[in-house]
Amino acid sequence: MEETKIVWPAEVEIVEVGPRDGLQNLPDYVPAETKIELIKRLAGAGTKIMEVTSFVHPKAVPQMADAVKVAEFAVQNADQLGFKPLALVPNLKGAQTAYATGLREVNYVISVSAAHNKANINRTIEASLEELENIIVALPELKINLSMATAFGCPFTGEVPTEDILRLTQSAIDRGVTTITLADTIGVANPVQTLGVIRAVQQAYPDISIGIHIHDTHGAGLANTLMAMSLGITRVESAVGGLGGCPFAPGAAGNMATEDLNNVLLRMGIRTGIDPVRYQESVSFVQEHIQASLLSHLSRARSYQEFSFYTNS
Amino acid sequence: MEETKIVWPAEVEIVEVGPRDGLQNLPDYVPAETKIELIKRLAGAGTKIMEVTSFVHPKAVPQMADAVKVAEFAVQNADQLGFKPLALVPNLKGAQTAYATGLREVNYVISVSAAHNKANINRTIEASLEELENIIVALPELKINLSMATAFGCPFTGEVPTEDILRLTQSAIDRGVTTITLADTIGVANPVQTLGVIRAVQQAYPDISIGIHIHDTHGAGLANTLMAMSLGITRVESAVGGLGGCPFAPGAAGNMATEDLNNVLLRMGIRTGIDPVRYQESVSFVQEHIQASLLSHLSRARSYQEFSFYTNS
Repeated sequence: MEETKIVWPAEVEIVEVGPRDGLQNLPDYVPAETKIELIKRLAGAGTKIMEVTSFVHPKAVPQMADAVKVAEFAVQNADQLGFKPLALVPNLKGAQTAYATGLREVNYVISVSAAHNKANINRTIEASLEELENIIVALPELKINLSMATAFGCPFTGEVPTEDILRLTQSAIDRGVTTITLADTIGVANPVQTLGVIRAVQQAYPDISIGIHIHDTHGAGLANTLMAMSLGITRVESAVGGLGGCPFAPGAAGNMATEDLNNVLLRMGIRTGIDPVRYQESVSFVQEHIQASLLSHLSRARSYQEFSFYTNS
Repeated sequence: MEETKIVWPAEVEIVEVGPRDGLQNLPDYVPAETKIELIKRLAGAGTKIMEVTSFVHPKAVPQMADAVKVAEFAVQNADQLGFKPLALVPNLKGAQTAYATGLREVNYVISVSAAHNKANINRTIEASLEELENIIVALPELKINLSMATAFGCPFTGEVPTEDILRLTQSAIDRGVTTITLADTIGVANPVQTLGVIRAVQQAYPDISIGIHIHDTHGAGLANTLMAMSLGITRVESAVGGLGGCPFAPGAAGNMATEDLNNVLLRMGIRTGIDPVRYQESVSFVQEHIQASLLSHLSRARSYQEFSFYTNS
């Protein structure tokens, strides 16, 4: 009889995307000072990598109109706060603005689904790849990670063929990209699919570094994250409070909640570097200053101690 | 290098515990007629096994004071509705009352943690085992499944040693029990722990049939369920809407939500027999007649079609 054997990584790198993906879809503007205070607290809890903002057009995403201010704070205080700042960029202009703030690493986003890329970036995938080349030529010192949106399902066209993911990965590799992030933008991946997609990319491109970005619409966010981890994926994006959602992906729920992910990983004996007690202060800060009602499990407790009082931890 | 290999079952038997565990902790009495209507709808969606009530003392759990009426309905209509009814019993008296309604299968509950057994049943574990023998002697035609509460953590004493689970399993086997259910009564299990505990029981007692009963306090309910499934466990208890919680387990959140579990299993290609569209009508019924605000992901949609509109299913 076949037998299950699961190999877990010893350590996972949680990439906090709360200040970017977590906030971008909120109806009310969150002041830059509040964003900066959140970034400070997240870093204080042990967050090592953070996507702090998005250099999109302020008409498209007004919430990110303060991208320069937030990014400049992050760049100038990153060493002292002990984290590496990233930002999302959709085009050359965004990349140039990001670079000018001092950022040296960005997530450049292309959707695997042509329909979503059109809705999100207003370009064809081919045009997005040309723009990727423009960025690489214009800013040779900028490290570029390719975020592949709608890799597990598209809000407009449904199922996304794995061959489309492989083709986009090949295009990225052809242009010198060495790290990609497979994003379940609308939170519809299932664990079998997650295993299959990641295995396919690993087998076709064993040298590329793969991260994941998972939304929790169906409640399978943690399960999908664990499936990815079982294949050696150790770069995982998540957002404080489970905030988030793509403005151009109707129906999508929030990101995998960092506090829930971190709690379970620590209980599994997997290192993250994030202190759950201090992180809970960021959750409380979000509830007090940004959004009172959150979807994460841990947000229902007043403190991490309260949450875990009936366990031995 | 070690490599992960996960073997999924082709089919999972979802044991619906909504009418029992889902309701027992609600502050307001749910009329027997509403419970019966819920049972009808759950069966209509394809539920094959259902824990319909609990034969506890009405002073301890007033919500279950109508156990006889609900059980009699279930027994008399089970064939026509196409499901097998079960009930929970804590003692001989409860088992006798259950038997008198026509039920021929019960979940007899003993906590692995002595402190929780005392709080829940007001007995020592030894006394609970003696009572198990009394039931077996008095009702030889009653099939008894042993539900092992707090197998993954106790609200009073924290960690539960695996050897205590093995000892209780041995005691059950000594008395002729052939099926057990490992219950994470307070929802604190992590996936590594779930794998470890189930593997330990399987290795020590390869002939016993194991089911699981998982709460979702930490948001790891689905992940833990999948871990159990990867070890061949195909009997999984869950509750409509993610309702539930033990009255004598402070801080515990609801059960794994049947609609969320069923949706993900179907997307994984695993058969359950439950129609997600019809099941969603049970979720809506709960929201209209029992509790408006539920914790499950699917309860946030008005219909299953709305929930899945942006997928190809």
